[in-house]
This record gives sequence, C-alpha cells and structure tokens, in this order.
Amino acid sequence: MTSLSDLPLRDDLRGLTPYGAPQLHVPVALNVNENTHSIPEPVARDIVAALAKAVASVNRYPDREFTELRESLAGYLGHGLTRENIWAANGSNEVLQQVLQAFGGPGRSVLGFAPTYSMYSILASGTGTRWIAGDRDADFELGPATAARWVRESTPDLVFLCSPNNPTGTPLSLETIAAVYDATDGIVVVDEAYAEFAPVGAPSALSLLPGRERLLVSRTMSKAFAFAGARVGYLAADPAVTDALRLVRLPYHLSALTQAAACAALAHTAEMLAMVDDIRGQRDRLVTELDRLGYSPYRSGSNFVLFGGVADPNATFEALLAEGILIRDVGIPGHLRVSAGTEAETTSFLDALARLSLAVQ
Amino acid sequence: MTSLSDLPLRDDLRGLTPYGAPQLHVPVALNVNENTHSIPEPVARDIVAALAKAVASVNRYPDREFTELRESLAGYLGHGLTRENIWAANGSNEVLQQVLQAFGGPGRSVLGFAPTYSMYSILASGTGTRWIAGDRDADFELGPATAARWVRESTPDLVFLCSPNNPTGTPLSLETIAAVYDATDGIVVVDEAYAEFAPVGAPSALSLLPGRERLLVSRTMSKAFAFAGARVGYLAADPAVTDALRLVRLPYHLSALTQAAACAALAHTAEMLAMVDDIRGQRDRLVTELDRLGYSPYRSGSNFVLFGGVADPNATFEALLAEGILIRDVGIPGHLRVSAGTEAETTSFLDALARLSLAVQ
Repeated sequence: MTSLSDLPLRDDLRGLTPYGAPQLHVPVALNVNENTHSIPEPVARDIVAALAKAVASVNRYPDREFTELRESLAGYLGHGLTRENIWAANGSNEVLQQVLQAFGGPGRSVLGFAPTYSMYSILASGTGTRWIAGDRDADFELGPATAARWVRESTPDLVFLCSPNNPTGTPLSLETIAAVYDATDGIVVVDEAYAEFAPVGAPSALSLLPGRERLLVSRTMSKAFAFAGARVGYLAADPAVTDALRLVRLPYHLSALTQAAACAALAHTAEMLAMVDDIRGQRDRLVTELDRLGYSPYRSGSNFVLFGGVADPNATFEALLAEGILIRDVGIPGHLRVSAGTEAETTSFLDALARLSLAVQ
Repeated sequence: MTSLSDLPLRDDLRGLTPYGAPQLHVPVALNVNENTHSIPEPVARDIVAALAKAVASVNRYPDREFTELRESLAGYLGHGLTRENIWAANGSNEVLQQVLQAFGGPGRSVLGFAPTYSMYSILASGTGTRWIAGDRDADFELGPATAARWVRESTPDLVFLCSPNNPTGTPLSLETIAAVYDATDGIVVVDEAYAEFAPVGAPSALSLLPGRERLLVSRTMSKAFAFAGARVGYLAADPAVTDALRLVRLPYHLSALTQAAACAALAHTAEMLAMVDDIRGQRDRLVTELDRLGYSPYRSGSNFVLFGGVADPNATFEALLAEGILIRDVGIPGHLRVSAGTEAETTSFLDALARLSLAVQ
C-alpha cells in the first residue's frame, strides 16, 4: 500500500497531521463554538425558497462578484459601509488565506498573540508566511503597550488580532487595535468572528476603519447567524483591499447556493440574531457557575468560556464525553473550553461537571 | 482615494489584473463552456429537498470528510474506485490549488502544454510554483514523444494534462498520459473536466490509475452535470494522495449545502447526463458547419469548438455580441472558441456567423 511518505510531498508538510476537532455524534456538542440553536422555521423556509431559485439556474456560473451578497453584508454591518468595502469567501479561514496570499507569502511574516485561533499559524504555513507568536499580558489580556511593543520589535508584514480572542474569550480594546495599527506599516486584521456576542453597545473595530486603509475587519456568519454549515466568512476594509483579494481569489469561489442562502438569511437579521441574547445569557451563567464550582473562568466576549483550575483536563474531557457531553481541550495546561449551548445543554454540562467535581473531592 | 499601489501587496502581484471572462447578460451565452440546459425539473425538486434537510442543521459545521459525497462520486466514476480514492473541493480550481499546495510551492515547478487552461499558470503563481509552458504538436495535438520529451528536459515536479484540452478541445490519448507518467517521478494530473463529452466508449485516464500512485484524475460537476453554479470539482487517486490533500485543505471547506446538492444530483446521474448526448450532437454540428462556412474547426472531445481562419477575431466577437451572442476570444491569433448550446442557441450562433461571413465577402 502506498503511504504519504512514498509521494513527492512538499518538505515542510512531512510528518504533519490534518487540523481538526473530532467530529463525534453526541447529545450535547459544545466543542467547536457552534450556535447550537437551529435556524427559526420561517427563516429556514425563506432560505430554501432562495435556494430553489438558485438551483433553477445552477447550470450557469455564479456571479463572480457576489454583488447582492456584498450589498447585504454591507447593510448588515452598517458603519457607512457599502458593497465596495466588502469581501466574502467560504468561511473566514478562506478570507484569511486570501489575505495572506495577497499580503504575506515567502519572505513575509504574520504576528499573532498566543494562545490564539490555531488556524492562524496553519494558514501562515500553508501560504509560506512566517508565523510569529507574540505573548499576552496576565489572564490572556492584550493591552496596547504589550501589543505595540511586539509589533515594533518583530516588524511583521501582517498582524492578526482575534477580538474577542479564541480560545480564551478575551475581549480586545479599540485602544490596543489603534496602537497596533500605528506601530506598523503592514496589514492589520481584526478577526471579529464572535463580535455579536460582545456586551450590547460594545464598539466594533469597524468604527476604526475610516482613514485606516490597512485595517481589515473579518467576520463570519457561522456563529451569531447559526450558519457554520453554509461556510460564509467576510471582511470589511478599504475598497483597495478588496481589489487586492480579487488578484488571489479563485474565480467563482462562492457558489450560487452559498450566495442565495446567505442573502436570504441576512434578510432576516433580527430573527437570526434573536438567539444571540439567549446565548449571551448562557455564557454569563457558565462564568458564574464555573466560578462557584471552584474553577477559574476568564471573562468572555464570545459564545464560549475558557476555564482554568482543571486538575486533569484529559480526565475531565473523557468523563464528560462518557456522559455524552463534548467540550474542547485546547492544549492550555489545566484548562478546558466550553461553548454556551441552549439552556438545557448548558445545564447538562454544568450538572455533569458538578457531579464530577464532587466525585473528585 | 487609496489605490492598490498604496497597499503592501506581495511584489509578484503588482500590476496584475484579476482573471475573468466578462459576465454579460445576453440571450445566447456560449463563452464559458457552461452546460446551457437547466437541470430537469424532477431532479431540481430532489436537490431542493436535500437542501431543505441540510438547512435544518446548518447551524452545525458540515462533515469535514464529506463522506457521503465521496461515496457518491466513487459510485459515479466506477472503475472499482471507493470513497478512499476520492477528493472534492469548491470547483476543480480549488482541487488543483490544493494539489499545488501539497506537491508544488516555492522551489518546485509544474509543466503544462500551451495553449491550455489559463487557470493553470495562475494557480501556479498563486502557490509560488514555477510554471513551465511546453509546446504541442501540429493542430494542438499532444503525442507521447513530444510530451515525454518536454517532461524529461524540464524535469517538473508536477505535470498538468488537460484532457480534452481547453481551449482547443483536443482529445489526449492514454498513450501520451502513460508516457508522461513513465518519464517523471513527480505528480501527473489529468484534468478531465470535459470527459463526459468524449465519444461513447472512449477510455478515461481513470483506467490508468491502478498501480500509478502519482496519477491524479480531476473532474468537475460544472459541465456534464450542469452544476457550474454549485462549484463541485473532484479527483480520483491513490488514497495516499487524498491524505496529502487533507494537510492543506481548509477545515470544513465544503459546505453542507454543497455536499447535499451534489449528492442529490449524483443520485440522478442518468437524467443529468441525458443532456450530454444533445450537447455532443450540437458540438459535432458546430464542427461540420464551421468548416462549411470556411473556418478551420479543430477536432473536439469537449462541449466547445475552437476554430481558426478568423480574419479579425475581435471584430467577429463584437459583431456577434451586438446580436446578443457571447463567445470567447481565447487569445490565439485568428481563432475564436464557442460552446455548444441547445439546438436553438447553436442555430442562433451559426446563423449570425453565416450572415457576418457573407457581409465580409
């Protein structure tokens, strides 16, 4: 049988294993920060109607410029943005890959602040961009002084700021983003995948876009819009940035089905985001209850909570899994991460963890 | 206003313009080798039903291994293939990009035979792979001797063979493919995007797969399956090849909608491919009639025809466009390319061209 080592694989890929959280079928899956609420029935009907229309002409290539989708996304984001400011791709991973293809690559580098979203370094490697892992302040916070110092000392071509940060949940201040921008001539990406879960009224990096043509704010429909299965990531930036991304995107990269489904969902923003309040409530409940159980949860602006004080993360992970509850060991010693589910799912997790904690004492 | 040159763009992208045929709305679009037949109504209904089911759980990430889709594609291809042999992505462009990410990249090279599919060199550039343009024999044919000589002399890491070749339509013999394979230790990709339009009984490169672990045969659902809008490309190869592609693919790169729609379409292979006979008939008619009009069409195993003997390709292109008929100037002096449409579309094109040819005489 032929194995990988028999093939003329690129040298830097030898010995690697593919990225991926386990895809197990369990009653309570709180491991990949999905929105565990399904789409409201009336919205689902409209999405299916839009898909039916798209299927009728699916023999033709899709609109390469996904004009209507960019229009819809601009309308959703507000902040005076128009479709000229918007780019989208199959998940924010593809958006970030295109950003690295346009502005990174061999001989260039990208700075992030560890621990952070694990795909950043993988995307860097896949595009030949050198990955620089900066440090954070205490409790995984990232203040302007620390961030700007890392930028000045490592002079990266790009900086990836995850706001709030995954897997720690830590919010990021606009001051830090502005300080990073001022400290570099390179591209600054603020990954706001979880922005909708921030406290009501919390400012977005979108408000920093005017006058900052090297600032890119990426988003996703996977989380707040409960659209992980549809793969729609996007970003807002100066129109010149979207012109740069046109040079590296594959033609027709967004299918007619993706465009139709996303536009239909965005036409129902209010109903789609109604779930966000529930999830925020369960997130806050997780922080309170994890603390009460003697763990050390971190503050979170996202739909998940990282908590420390776990004596044996692997044992806790496995004990929960045995009860049909899947959470995430993100590789930080003494820590685990859990997504905020529905009220029932969150209760299942907290009850099971309480029983385990009791058994250990 | 910020322009591209104000941004820290990668040096090798400076001055480039994005790939893309014009997307004009015209009555008769025969420019991008689409299948101009829409999907049969009963099949469309089943696809929409499958999409509706997928929307119900679109809040969850899709099956990262797209197991059912790989199973369906293996069943469609036959040749004893199983899902372990199959890979898929958002269009065959993404499949080929992943192949270059895994086996090409900086310091490596890919050989193709010009004129050929224009995306090959763009994908090479996007992945930092050096593009080598080999020559063809007379009439854009590619025999074993010429092909193998180019491989031996340029020692590429990959060879891309387009079979039949786009934009010329030229079929490629299995002898040439086998000769290329024997002449290299690198990866050999046979791009069979138009394979279903070959004469009935013509052998596919799939029959060469056993014992050739460096041979990859790529296909698409865009053409024969009338699925250009859905973006489904795929390949068949040794299972070790698919393991290599798992190292470079973005996690969850195929949406739940794409997977559902493609599986539903593949369950109706017979109805979907019923259009292929019609299209083959119109393709043969194009060859006959273009010859009768005094042009020099080339033999074609695809759903399009390249023809020479055009005094002023740009003038002919524009004159046809003025009549609502869009074809393609592929940049070969004295030549134009036209896709085989429905009988009515093909008639419109031929009638208009006959009138133009008369006017010129």
